[in-house]
Amino acid sequence: MHSDLSAPSRRDLLTMIGKAGGGLAMYQAMTALGHAAETQFTGPPQLSGAKPGASVLVLGAGLAGMLAAYELTKAGYKVQVLEYQDRPGGRNYSVRGGDKIVEVGGATQTVGYAPGNYLNPGPWRIPHHHRTLLHYAKAFGVELEPFIQMNHNAFVHRKGAFGGKPQRYKELATDFKGHVSELLAKSLNAGALDSAVSKEDKERLVEAMRDWGVLDGNLAYTGDLHVAAQRGYDKAPGGGVGGAPTPSKINGLSSVLDSNVWTQMGFFFSYVMQTTMFEPKGGMDMIGKGFYRQVAKLVRLNTKVAKIAQDERGVTVDWTDTKTGQAGQSKADWMVCTIPATILSQMDLQVSDAKKAALKALPYSNSVKIGLEMKSRFWEENYSIYGGHSFTDQAIGLLSYPNFDFFKDRPAVLLGAFAGGAGGYQLAGMTPEQRIQTALAQGEVFHPAEYRAQFLNGASVAWSRIPWIMGCCATWSEDSRARHYQDLVSLDGRIVLAGEHASYYGCWMEGALLSSLDAIKRLHARAMSS
Amino acid sequence: MHSDLSAPSRRDLLTMIGKAGGGLAMYQAMTALGHAAETQFTGPPQLSGAKPGASVLVLGAGLAGMLAAYELTKAGYKVQVLEYQDRPGGRNYSVRGGDKIVEVGGATQTVGYAPGNYLNPGPWRIPHHHRTLLHYAKAFGVELEPFIQMNHNAFVHRKGAFGGKPQRYKELATDFKGHVSELLAKSLNAGALDSAVSKEDKERLVEAMRDWGVLDGNLAYTGDLHVAAQRGYDKAPGGGVGGAPTPSKINGLSSVLDSNVWTQMGFFFSYVMQTTMFEPKGGMDMIGKGFYRQVAKLVRLNTKVAKIAQDERGVTVDWTDTKTGQAGQSKADWMVCTIPATILSQMDLQVSDAKKAALKALPYSNSVKIGLEMKSRFWEENYSIYGGHSFTDQAIGLLSYPNFDFFKDRPAVLLGAFAGGAGGYQLAGMTPEQRIQTALAQGEVFHPAEYRAQFLNGASVAWSRIPWIMGCCATWSEDSRARHYQDLVSLDGRIVLAGEHASYYGCWMEGALLSSLDAIKRLHARAMSS
Repeated sequence: MHSDLSAPSRRDLLTMIGKAGGGLAMYQAMTALGHAAETQFTGPPQLSGAKPGASVLVLGAGLAGMLAAYELTKAGYKVQVLEYQDRPGGRNYSVRGGDKIVEVGGATQTVGYAPGNYLNPGPWRIPHHHRTLLHYAKAFGVELEPFIQMNHNAFVHRKGAFGGKPQRYKELATDFKGHVSELLAKSLNAGALDSAVSKEDKERLVEAMRDWGVLDGNLAYTGDLHVAAQRGYDKAPGGGVGGAPTPSKINGLSSVLDSNVWTQMGFFFSYVMQTTMFEPKGGMDMIGKGFYRQVAKLVRLNTKVAKIAQDERGVTVDWTDTKTGQAGQSKADWMVCTIPATILSQMDLQVSDAKKAALKALPYSNSVKIGLEMKSRFWEENYSIYGGHSFTDQAIGLLSYPNFDFFKDRPAVLLGAFAGGAGGYQLAGMTPEQRIQTALAQGEVFHPAEYRAQFLNGASVAWSRIPWIMGCCATWSEDSRARHYQDLVSLDGRIVLAGEHASYYGCWMEGALLSSLDAIKRLHARAMSS
Repeated sequence: MHSDLSAPSRRDLLTMIGKAGGGLAMYQAMTALGHAAETQFTGPPQLSGAKPGASVLVLGAGLAGMLAAYELTKAGYKVQVLEYQDRPGGRNYSVRGGDKIVEVGGATQTVGYAPGNYLNPGPWRIPHHHRTLLHYAKAFGVELEPFIQMNHNAFVHRKGAFGGKPQRYKELATDFKGHVSELLAKSLNAGALDSAVSKEDKERLVEAMRDWGVLDGNLAYTGDLHVAAQRGYDKAPGGGVGGAPTPSKINGLSSVLDSNVWTQMGFFFSYVMQTTMFEPKGGMDMIGKGFYRQVAKLVRLNTKVAKIAQDERGVTVDWTDTKTGQAGQSKADWMVCTIPATILSQMDLQVSDAKKAALKALPYSNSVKIGLEMKSRFWEENYSIYGGHSFTDQAIGLLSYPNFDFFKDRPAVLLGAFAGGAGGYQLAGMTPEQRIQTALAQGEVFHPAEYRAQFLNGASVAWSRIPWIMGCCATWSEDSRARHYQDLVSLDGRIVLAGEHASYYGCWMEGALLSSLDAIKRLHARAMSS
C-alpha cells in the first residue's frame, strides 16, 4: 500500500548504481552515502542468464543452502537440495512441546513445553545491521519483534563477589563509572595527565567526569539522591505525603571490582550485541520456514550424503534415504556444499588437499542451551525484569528472560543456560536430567524463592552431542584463519563451500547468508566463463 | 488459564503480610524480599466499608481522577467525576488523523496522519519499575509493547562538534570510554593514585580499563579490529573470499569532548530511562481508555468548574456545561481534585492560604512535541535505525523513531521534536506551520537525503498553549518542594489534591497514580473517623 507515495529509496539508487557500475561503484556509492560500514550486503545478487540446462546440487537445507537454491533458481539454474534431516533450517530451529532431541550416545528427550512455548537452541537474536537476514526475512514474510538485549535491572552474579549475592546491573555499572570518574577527575586535578591532555581538554574532561560519573561538588562519588536517580533508591519516589525518596548505598571500589561488571558493560557495547536487536515472532524457525516456502519443491529431506565426487563434467553425490534405506545418486554441473566442517571433514570428498586441511583445522565451539518452562513469569511480577539477561560466572553462563508475551499469565520458557567454554563441556557431559538439575541449582541464586517452586519441565541442546553437527559453530582463530580460510572458501573445480564457517561472521546467520551470496556469485561467474 | 498451576506469588505473600501487619510490616517484608527499592506501590489499596451514602466528587478525568473514582467506588463511595474536556485521559492521549488541536490564541491544526498513525503528545514511555501503572494497565486489559529507549546506532548531533555532522552514538561512546580508560590506566601506572587505591585494586583496575576500554597491549586506545568490534567497521565482516573486515578510525579525545556524548551516556543510565521500557500498543491513550472503561458511567464530560467551596458538611462545585451553556452544581461529602496547579491556582477555591500559595508557587515545564508523518521508514532501510532517539542541541532536542510497525511499508510518524527549556519556548512561540518548517530544517541534519522528500504532514502540541493546562507538568525545585509540597498534598478539610504535581514523580503517569492512591487512603481514613 501507499507505494505510489514512495520516493526512490537509497536501496533503489544503489541498485541502479550497481547495475551501471558494478560492485566497486556500488560500494563506493554506499560509502559516500554513509551506508557501507554496516554491512557487505548490497541487495540481492543480480544473477541471470545461466546456460540452458545448467544445474547445481546444493548440500544442506540450512539458511546458506536454501538461499543458494533460491537465488540460483532465479538465475536460471536447475537446482536440487539434499538435506540429511527430516526438516529444513539446520541450526535455525526451535524446539517445541512434543519434539524429540536425540543425542550422540542415545540420550533422548521429549520436550514438554506448553503449546506456543519454545526454545531457540541455535540462533536467537538478530542485530540491526545484519541486513542480509533482515532483507530476506522481510521478503519472505517473517515478522520480527524486538529482542531485549540490554536490561539495566537484570542481575550480575559472580561467585566471589558480594558473598555470592547477585547485584542489579544498574547498581554495579553506575558504581563502576562513578569510581572511574572520581579517580580520573582526581588524577586530572593533581596534574598527573598534564603532559597527555591539553589544559582546555583537561577542564572539559573534569566536567565530563562530574556529569557522567554523577560526582558531588567535591568531585567525589557518594550515595546521594542524584546517584540514586541512576542506580536506584532505597525508597523509591512516590506520591502524596510520604513521597520523598531516600538514596541507596553505593558499593566501594573493591566490591565493584570483585564483580567484573565491566565485562557486561563491554558486552552491551559489542557491535553484534548493540540495540536494536530482533527475533522472529513465534520462534527462530520462522526464518527457516520462510526460506523453505521459497524452495520446498527443490529439497529432498532425509538424505544422507556418503560420497562427493567431481570431474571435468560435473559433480556426483552418493546418498542414502534415511527413512527407506534406499541408496541413490545425484548429479549436477556444479555444487554448493553447506555441510558443516565437523561432518564434511569426515566424508569422502573430492577436493584439494588444502581444502581438506582447512576443513580439518577449523575448530567448532561447544555450546549448551537449556530452556526451563516455568509456571509463571515471576521474574516480571516479582523482580521487574522484562527480557534481557542475568549473568553469572557459573557454568550456565546466564539466564535469559523471554522477550515476548510480557505480562501474560501462562507458563513461559526461561533460557536457564547459555553455556560455552568449560561450562559448556561440563554441561554437555551430563545426562539431560543432570543438566536440568544443574541449571536449577545454579539459576536459583537469582530467584531463590521461585526457581524450583515454579519449575515445570526443561529441555537442553548440547551442540557437541547433536549428531548432524557435533558442535555449535566455527571459531576461527587468527592463526587458523590466516593459514586456511582462503583455502576453505576457494572455488575448487566445480565445488564451492558455504555457511557461517565460510565467513568472517562465524556463528551468525548473517555469515551463512553472506557466505552463500559470495559463493554463488563466484560459482555463477565460473559457470558462465566455462 | 493455568491458574491451578500457580504457586503463591510474592505479591500474594505481601498482600497477606499487609493485611496482617499493615503498611509498615508490608514495607519491611518487601525490603527483606529485595522488592521495595523499585516502587512505593504495594498493590491496590484495600479500602472498604465507606459509610452508607458517603460521596466523593472527583475533579478531572485524567489518570489520577479516574483511579480515585475506581478505587473509591470499590470502597463503597458514591462517586461523580467532572471533566472539562470532551474526552477522558487528560495529558494521557494520542493525536490521530482528523483530530483538531486548538491553542490559546486560536491557532488550530487538523491532523492529517494516515489511519493507525498517531503522536503521543504527553506521556509516551513507561519504565519497568512504574508498577502502579503496569498493574492497572494489566488489570484493565491494556496491551504493552517494548519502547526502544536506547539505540547504539542512532545519532548524536551537536552544532559545534564534527563540523555539525551527526555521529553514531556507538562510535562516540566507544571512543569516550576508550580515552577515559587509557587516561585512567596511565594515571594508575604512573602511581598518581597510589594513595587512593590499594595495590591490588590498582592492578585490577588497570585490567578493567584494558578490557572495558578495549585498549591495546600498550594500554593505548587505537583503532584496531577489537575496537571496531564495538564502534563499528570501515568495511564490515562478510562472507567468502572478501569477508575480512577493516577497522574504523577512532576520534581523538578533543573531538569526543566536543560532542558531549557523556550526556547521552548518562541519560541512558537514568533510573526512569533504563531498559526495559514499554508503550501501549496502538497509542498512549489506550491507558486512559482502559481506565475510562471502568468508570465511564461516573464521568460527566464537557463540564467546566467555576467555583469550589467546602464547609463542615461537604463540598460544592459550581460548573457550566461547555456544550449547552447550562449551569449546574454538584455536591458531595468529600473531594479529590486533580485539576493541574496552573488552572487550579486561578480558580475560586476554598482551601487554606498555604495550599493556595503552594499552587501558585509550583512552576510547570514547557514542552513541545512535533509528529512528522513520513512516506516511509527510511531511517530503518537507509540508516539501520530501529526505534530510539537521535539527539541534538538544536531546539527540537531529538528525533525519536517509532517503536512499532518495524519494517512496514507504509507512512509512519516520526517524533520530530521533543523540546523543553529554551527550545520549547522558542517553538511554542511559533505558528504551527513555522514549527513544522523548523522541525524539518533542524531534523534534516540527520537524514538530509530523505527528510523533506519523504515528509507528508505534521502536527505539534505546545503544552504552554494548550488551554486546559497551560503547561506540561510540575517541576518542583528543591526549594519550592521544601517550602510548599506538604501544604499542597495535605488534606484540607474535605478536599485533597492529587495528580503528578502532588508527587515526587512529577511528569510521570506513575506519579499521578501514586499520588491518587495516597490521597484516597488519607481521605478514606478521615471519612471513616469523622
